[in-house]
Amino acid sequence: MIIIMNVNATVREKSAVISKVEDSGCKANIFEGVEHMVIGVIGDGRPLNRDQVRLMPGVERVVPVLKPFKVASREFKPADTVFPIGDYMVGGDEFIIMAGPCSVESRSQIMETAHAVKEAGAHILRGGAFKPRSSPYSFQGLGEEGLIYLKEASEKYNMPFITEVMEPALVPLVSQYADILQIGARNMQNYALLHAVGRSQHPVLLKRGMSSLIEEWLMCAEYILSHGNTRVMLCERGIRTFETYTRNTFDINAIPVAKHLSHLPVIADPSHATGKWEYVAAGAKASIAAGADGVILEVHPRPDEAWSDGRQSLKPEKFAELVHQMKAIATAVDKNIVDPIPAMDPMMLPV
Amino acid sequence: MIIIMNVNATVREKSAVISKVEDSGCKANIFEGVEHMVIGVIGDGRPLNRDQVRLMPGVERVVPVLKPFKVASREFKPADTVFPIGDYMVGGDEFIIMAGPCSVESRSQIMETAHAVKEAGAHILRGGAFKPRSSPYSFQGLGEEGLIYLKEASEKYNMPFITEVMEPALVPLVSQYADILQIGARNMQNYALLHAVGRSQHPVLLKRGMSSLIEEWLMCAEYILSHGNTRVMLCERGIRTFETYTRNTFDINAIPVAKHLSHLPVIADPSHATGKWEYVAAGAKASIAAGADGVILEVHPRPDEAWSDGRQSLKPEKFAELVHQMKAIATAVDKNIVDPIPAMDPMMLPV
Amino acid sequence: MIIIMNVNATVREKSAVISKVEDSGCKANIFEGVEHMVIGVIGDGRPLNRDQVRLMPGVERVVPVLKPFKVASREFKPADTVFPIGDYMVGGDEFIIMAGPCSVESRSQIMETAHAVKEAGAHILRGGAFKPRSSPYSFQGLGEEGLIYLKEASEKYNMPFITEVMEPALVPLVSQYADILQIGARNMQNYALLHAVGRSQHPVLLKRGMSSLIEEWLMCAEYILSHGNTRVMLCERGIRTFETYTRNTFDINAIPVAKHLSHLPVIADPSHATGKWEYVAAGAKASIAAGADGVILEVHPRPDEAWSDGRQSLKPEKFAELVHQMKAIATAVDKNIVDPIPAMDPMMLPV
Amino acid sequence: MIIIMNVNATVREKSAVISKVEDSGCKANIFEGVEHMVIGVIGDGRPLNRDQVRLMPGVERVVPVLKPFKVASREFKPADTVFPIGDYMVGGDEFIIMAGPCSVESRSQIMETAHAVKEAGAHILRGGAFKPRSSPYSFQGLGEEGLIYLKEASEKYNMPFITEVMEPALVPLVSQYADILQIGARNMQNYALLHAVGRSQHPVLLKRGMSSLIEEWLMCAEYILSHGNTRVMLCERGIRTFETYTRNTFDINAIPVAKHLSHLPVIADPSHATGKWEYVAAGAKASIAAGADGVILEVHPRPDEAWSDGRQSLKPEKFAELVHQMKAIATAVDKNIVDPIPAMDPMMLPV
Repeated sequence: MIIIMNVNATVREKSAVISKVEDSGCKANIFEGVEHMVIGVIGDGRPLNRDQVRLMPGVERVVPVLKPFKVASREFKPADTVFPIGDYMVGGDEFIIMAGPCSVESRSQIMETAHAVKEAGAHILRGGAFKPRSSPYSFQGLGEEGLIYLKEASEKYNMPFITEVMEPALVPLVSQYADILQIGARNMQNYALLHAVGRSQHPVLLKRGMSSLIEEWLMCAEYILSHGNTRVMLCERGIRTFETYTRNTFDINAIPVAKHLSHLPVIADPSHATGKWEYVAAGAKASIAAGADGVILEVHPRPDEAWSDGRQSLKPEKFAELVHQMKAIATAVDKNIVDPIPAMDPMMLPV
Repeated sequence: MIIIMNVNATVREKSAVISKVEDSGCKANIFEGVEHMVIGVIGDGRPLNRDQVRLMPGVERVVPVLKPFKVASREFKPADTVFPIGDYMVGGDEFIIMAGPCSVESRSQIMETAHAVKEAGAHILRGGAFKPRSSPYSFQGLGEEGLIYLKEASEKYNMPFITEVMEPALVPLVSQYADILQIGARNMQNYALLHAVGRSQHPVLLKRGMSSLIEEWLMCAEYILSHGNTRVMLCERGIRTFETYTRNTFDINAIPVAKHLSHLPVIADPSHATGKWEYVAAGAKASIAAGADGVILEVHPRPDEAWSDGRQSLKPEKFAELVHQMKAIATAVDKNIVDPIPAMDPMMLPV
Repeated sequence: MIIIMNVNATVREKSAVISKVEDSGCKANIFEGVEHMVIGVIGDGRPLNRDQVRLMPGVERVVPVLKPFKVASREFKPADTVFPIGDYMVGGDEFIIMAGPCSVESRSQIMETAHAVKEAGAHILRGGAFKPRSSPYSFQGLGEEGLIYLKEASEKYNMPFITEVMEPALVPLVSQYADILQIGARNMQNYALLHAVGRSQHPVLLKRGMSSLIEEWLMCAEYILSHGNTRVMLCERGIRTFETYTRNTFDINAIPVAKHLSHLPVIADPSHATGKWEYVAAGAKASIAAGADGVILEVHPRPDEAWSDGRQSLKPEKFAELVHQMKAIATAVDKNIVDPIPAMDPMMLPV
Repeated sequence: MIIIMNVNATVREKSAVISKVEDSGCKANIFEGVEHMVIGVIGDGRPLNRDQVRLMPGVERVVPVLKPFKVASREFKPADTVFPIGDYMVGGDEFIIMAGPCSVESRSQIMETAHAVKEAGAHILRGGAFKPRSSPYSFQGLGEEGLIYLKEASEKYNMPFITEVMEPALVPLVSQYADILQIGARNMQNYALLHAVGRSQHPVLLKRGMSSLIEEWLMCAEYILSHGNTRVMLCERGIRTFETYTRNTFDINAIPVAKHLSHLPVIADPSHATGKWEYVAAGAKASIAAGADGVILEVHPRPDEAWSDGRQSLKPEKFAELVHQMKAIATAVDKNIVDPIPAMDPMMLPV
């Protein structure tokens, strides 16, 4: 149940409603909107009398929430969630481009890639420091060393950065460095991790699990939101189906469906959704046309030498070409791909 | 194996090569290009000596075909297949819009819908006269009566029409009326039907089976092409996966992959690929951005009263809005949505 | 709606009820059971007044059928369907073993295999004369020649035989030779073919489509049953999923589910369901334990030389071993694997 | 690479080989078998000269391991892994039955269920104290209180118990109580958790992820084994496919495939693999016939009142009947379902 308060409800009236909710054994999630205060009632099964609440002073209306996800639902919050990441706004008219290598391999590799993607028009830098790998014998990432290099590149090129966090114990460390915490597809239902990033109050990008229903994905967002951490982005990265020509099947439908069911921004990951660089541009362009709020793309200066995911990484020149094409489509669908804010370092400016 | 002849190979040289192929027990598929003649060799297992062929007069080069589909492959024919349907060209720069109801329900319903979709910008009329239905007790279509109504609407509004044919015995009848024969997803591997439409030499739209690999789909196109019927369009209509929020999962990757592996035009069917009208526009727009050559869309004047697929049918006004949006995206990706050719009947012209 | 007549309902009473049904515009499907006559009402949408029917003389009770499949459902016919194939009974306590090669390759190959599988304990011979192949350039089967060889082997070794029919036009020909018509997975929703085998009144084995829901499979059985052809066997042969280590995923759940929803016999095909001979025995044994009424297995004297499906074919000695193991499990679940009826030809008797 | 030492290799010879491996920068995993010592070489990419190793004194042979999983593979360890859990042996001739409720709901509920399943023939008690739930608002388990009740039931009825552990930080706590740590399907690729249970040296049951390939599942077992924790059981619990009539699709093929690729015991979970109690018995019986080493089953005294998974829980009397049937099948496939060891408490003995 959601309680929407009047525009001019008094503090006393608001408090009375909150007390009523809590006295009934439910939890009150409070969202202070620009005009209205909205109270999300998260029940423990004992029903709260809806008619009684409706009649309390200051209450405008009471809306039942039918979906199993509540705070993540459009019913709970009809307006799009929009929030800043560095100098950019996610979830509104701006279309955000995140780019970088799958793994941070060395200081020079991440600096070179950051420079290239920034030049080409990317807003946010991506790169893996802790890597989930199918084999315990594969390269597991540079760890904190990788975070240090990412931070340096981020500062030099004035790009917020996103990186994956794989276990609850590492959330404090990764949060010290990264601007956005990424939850990978394998960890979508790692509830301890979701609670940890929820508590961190850091922006989160939540990838959809490989075989997760859209509703289950939103339920996982709900885990994070239930801690009052509202800066959550959903990320469609392809699902596992019988088709093996591509690494995954890009569920393009998931973009409008997630936007319809939820107010959260939706980012697409055509690199994983296709798994082959030849098809990444088509996937990225389709994402904008389908209504995504951004893309996250793998770019590597020398894909053949990449330690992971080289097969799906774009070369910087292909990426630059794609940014150009994405801008044309963005215009056609009333989205705006802003020019990146110049780097702090004047040495980095284009010659 | 594909044999590419010299630009100035003589008729005698060409004949000699064809004879050589046929004498070895293989079949020679002949494609007369603008410059070169290309001979596709379809073997019966007995090998043809490649070196011998290469040394024959008039032969420019000999290329092995590694894919299990041959005539359908880009290796066989690098250039896009482009052919006319009525006054429109499919497979080139033009982006084709096919629209109409799932089933023809009555003369007035199809006339009304044809008028509406033509007005909104559709090029080709769609409508089912013979319907594949899960239950033997459901409405199975109007049959030939439906074809008659479709033909009348097609002539009145100057729109070629496409309709499904479900069994080999009906190919002659349906071909008498329809401009394009549609093979439905359930019949993708109905080989007798593929042979029949191949022999008919009529344009064919081949829907991808619900759980068919992209390569299997191209193998089915090969069945049609093996009869020398080159006017084949591929149609991605969504695949069956674990996700049930949408009726099917729209495999957007299949568009660039099919364009990459094959020279045939690729049409998208966002109505079936989503199954819910709310998401059809996003799917249609994504299709253009991903490189499709056209879309086929279900439109019904009163979806709530439709005898089938009402849930995924657009109202004419929503369809008109979508055509407008598709035009903007088409421009962004260098495709062209041409204005429909006016109807013959001056009475039909917009007031 | 199903109408169950009294044990001692008179012919006149029965006729009156049938007339009532038909006058209301519905079709009456009549099943003469051992005790009761049951009338299945197949509506065209116009409702038949249930209360009026209930009050007619001779009517015991009226049961609504909620499933979209009617004649195939347990609600329609609670008792298992049991019918003879040659000297064997399918669908009751007997567990039926069908075995033979994927394709008939030559007279000697089918004679040799028939002899071997008969010796090992098979009841019914299988073999493909018309083969559905992914490529138009692959071996398509021996056609009628294959049917002639199958018939000869069938007579010599006193084994009824099953073979696939792929198109409506061939149903009369194949029915002349074969004891059971097989509908392959690719053709499960080839409705013209289902109608044709329904009309033929020949026993049918209906394979489940590669991505077909259990309910859709039963709907396809309904197409056959709607012609009054009640000798239908369902065949689970594996479904297509993301797992590619095996050719298909054997949906073992489908066996108890189909037995629960329907009265029809269920046969398992572990050869296709696994695609690798090493796993066929485990699949066959699991099928009996899960409640199947029989299995259909690919056996080839020299799998390495098989023209198709060699990878999943058992050698005769492995098959003989498996029959032995299946007998032990059959006993444990109160099924009976009867010894095959001796061949007519005394020369064939074991030495 | 695996190095198999001679039966009478000396300690000095063994040490020399281990040093050789480690000096080359690889890790030596040592398995002391009954006759031979086997050294698993886990490389870091730098190749170890195989011929040099083969010529060292005491070396019998050197075998390359081609699979991405090494210690988990049959190539590494051809013989079945067999180890004790309490008084039972897992992985050999004994077929193990684990049973109990989905969640521990109260002290009395777990005591009542433990008594019932023990009486009916179960060897090991199951029950969830920490529950992974799709919604943050659902019952999350009793936590440590649940572990205390499980331990009490375990001691009273002399049944080892298994329970799920969901996060690395809880491994020490859960290990204090439980005899087997369960890794749930959602956490199959939670690598931090796999490392933690590997380090714990506690027996582990590793459920296959909902959309995990068999090879990926074995790679996850490898994470645990790489810590030298060899007491790992694999558990097939159904995969997610397009079929929704059952909760999951029971991949029965996975049982013989996992037994073929790996030496680890394989347990089946027909409760989750079907999701409906009506089909659990068929699934359990099929599991034995297909070669499983045990089953894990949900049993609840009053399924209608269960706080979770009531739909798939057997009543104690149905479970008892199933144990009876499983014994008959076990005998048919040369497996042995031993009678449970009597409880310590003489009060519990059957009257």
